[in-house]
Amino acid sequence: MPHDTSPLHIAQSLLRCPSVTPAEGGALTFIEGVLREAGFEVHRPVFSEAGTPDVENLYARYGKTEPYLLFAGHTDVVPPGDINRWRHDPFSGAIEEGELFGRGAVDMKGGVACMMAAAIEFIRANPDFKGSIGFLITGDEEGPAINGSVKLLDWARARGERFDHCILGEPTNPNQLGDMIKIGRRGSLTGKLVVEGKQGHVAYPHLADNPIPGMLRLLNGLLREPLDRGTAHFDASNLEVTTVDVGNPASNVIPADARATFNIRFNDLWTPQSLEEEIARRLREAAGNTVRYTLTVEPTNAVAFITEPNAFVGFIADAIEAETGIRPKLSTTGGTSDARFIVRDCPVVEFGLVGQTMHQIDERVPVADLDRLATIYGKVLDAYFAVSA
Amino acid sequence: MPHDTSPLHIAQSLLRCPSVTPAEGGALTFIEGVLREAGFEVHRPVFSEAGTPDVENLYARYGKTEPYLLFAGHTDVVPPGDINRWRHDPFSGAIEEGELFGRGAVDMKGGVACMMAAAIEFIRANPDFKGSIGFLITGDEEGPAINGSVKLLDWARARGERFDHCILGEPTNPNQLGDMIKIGRRGSLTGKLVVEGKQGHVAYPHLADNPIPGMLRLLNGLLREPLDRGTAHFDASNLEVTTVDVGNPASNVIPADARATFNIRFNDLWTPQSLEEEIARRLREAAGNTVRYTLTVEPTNAVAFITEPNAFVGFIADAIEAETGIRPKLSTTGGTSDARFIVRDCPVVEFGLVGQTMHQIDERVPVADLDRLATIYGKVLDAYFAVSA
Ligand SMILES: [Zn+2]
Ligand SMILES: [Zn+2]
Repeated sequence: MPHDTSPLHIAQSLLRCPSVTPAEGGALTFIEGVLREAGFEVHRPVFSEAGTPDVENLYARYGKTEPYLLFAGHTDVVPPGDINRWRHDPFSGAIEEGELFGRGAVDMKGGVACMMAAAIEFIRANPDFKGSIGFLITGDEEGPAINGSVKLLDWARARGERFDHCILGEPTNPNQLGDMIKIGRRGSLTGKLVVEGKQGHVAYPHLADNPIPGMLRLLNGLLREPLDRGTAHFDASNLEVTTVDVGNPASNVIPADARATFNIRFNDLWTPQSLEEEIARRLREAAGNTVRYTLTVEPTNAVAFITEPNAFVGFIADAIEAETGIRPKLSTTGGTSDARFIVRDCPVVEFGLVGQTMHQIDERVPVADLDRLATIYGKVLDAYFAVSA
Repeated sequence: MPHDTSPLHIAQSLLRCPSVTPAEGGALTFIEGVLREAGFEVHRPVFSEAGTPDVENLYARYGKTEPYLLFAGHTDVVPPGDINRWRHDPFSGAIEEGELFGRGAVDMKGGVACMMAAAIEFIRANPDFKGSIGFLITGDEEGPAINGSVKLLDWARARGERFDHCILGEPTNPNQLGDMIKIGRRGSLTGKLVVEGKQGHVAYPHLADNPIPGMLRLLNGLLREPLDRGTAHFDASNLEVTTVDVGNPASNVIPADARATFNIRFNDLWTPQSLEEEIARRLREAAGNTVRYTLTVEPTNAVAFITEPNAFVGFIADAIEAETGIRPKLSTTGGTSDARFIVRDCPVVEFGLVGQTMHQIDERVPVADLDRLATIYGKVLDAYFAVSA
């Protein structure tokens, strides 16, 4: 008996796989079966790296010609937390009052299910369409993201795969389906500061060197001026000092050093390199000759990127409006996603379910949203291959 | 056989008593025996308070008339640390190359020994002098200082004891005997700040409220202007921020609150009350309407005090110069001492041994310094009772 390829059935089947990063949990095997049956060529590369767990991934392609539209997503999920606080077992795929419950319901097994359902239906209706549809599904998005999309894209590139456009199915809508498309993401850069002083007794400050005033100067210097005022599609870049720590329990002791961490979410005016230079410049200026400090910037692959609004973005916005009656906002807000890796290969746009319950107890999705998202993806496929044909 | 009342023998006997706070260790019992033999009336009050260990103390008086000169000190010592790092057992009273080793050698069993030796010799030479000599010796100076000098002074006052002047034998000399008399001490005040924010994700700063910029504003406000420029006998008051702690390990999370502690060493321009008001004013001004914070000032009994240079200070300085050839500096620097309690009853001046090795491994005192300090104390007694007679 062939698989039921309705979005609900695929989603429910995926939710029953306990695929907390890095476990595959049966999710990719289920997807492989469904896509093979629909005529896809499916690969299951496993990636390794010393010090990290091996991770299973999936790459599937239908068609051999251009244009090539890639659906991207992940089947790994964050841990469910306290299972007793869930209304339903987070890996049971329970439905209550029209809502499907489970860890990953919106982030993003639900989105993956809708992509699959839409692609299979499109292929059934248009078996000889000119072009290709692919799936790039990782099992390492919620974890360290080392053995996931980056290596899967490298692997695909090495095989000669060339994508024209990509839709990533992360839950992009803040409140209701149709609210928001992500056409870019800010980059993220984390830096750590250590200011060196000299320990001593508060009664003899001339024999000590308190690092805290120096740390205040550096942090004031970082925060004094906005990094920028935003760009056409991006908010202003934002720096948050996330922690300052000295850890000195003795109120009669001047401490030896002070530490701080900051994180910057930056827009397309910056590369990690140019931003690091600006940070270093601000710190040098604030430090003058008096503050001894070290700045360590964590290596980052979270660059800012933008998919300029164009015909592809237009297909998606039109499909959303046709189904929901809402003209989606083209946004670049929020956290990072694997889109930052995919954008090296082709333009990528993110659109998926409503994110409100993601990563929370009782993560859930209205069954109606699954059907409507599958319909939207179907309309995108219709428009994409009709125009490109 | 009567006690050997040389400074060295008394000091050595005291060093052999393991009187780490709050243990009496035999030290006060030894002192009691020596002073009784010399004709002192000796009391051994023990003070208690819920939550703190009982502490033994000693009060002794010779003579019934005025003027009354009080010697004050302590026999408790800080722990020796790693005993294996000492050249000699810290409680053996070992002598090597003219130096007496042991925990408390300079802080301040050595000083107590010199006071006792000087007083006993003075009484022997002047059995019928007009006036009184007393000893106020606590066993709780290095600890919480709750069951020590404060209660001992209350106890003495309740008995009707009235002191005219006091010499406290803390190690006041930075480098060599005669360097420095302390004629006052700065006060100490500790405050704690908590700035309340709202936790959130760095990618959504508008949904959070980072407490760290507010903390920077408050600390900048505290540090911006000097508290004062010093007074006739005091350095400028000094504020040190001793710790800032957020304790947020996640660089993608905006923390909920930030904490800081500061300590102020303040001069005679301030009382703890007026200083607390100034701190509160600076914080209010820095906070404006935007920073939500709480300030908690720890109760303090460490007020600033000064014994104005007068004839009494003159006796001591003269005695020091006569013995050492050095005119001592009249200083108010350094940490707090029990002098802050004694000053409520009478003017107090501190002079003792050289402090370099205090609280350290291999604490030690040149035997020659013991003899010279006893001589100085003797000269003070001669001058004090000759003039006052
Ligand atoms: Zn996701
Ligand atoms: Zn002491």
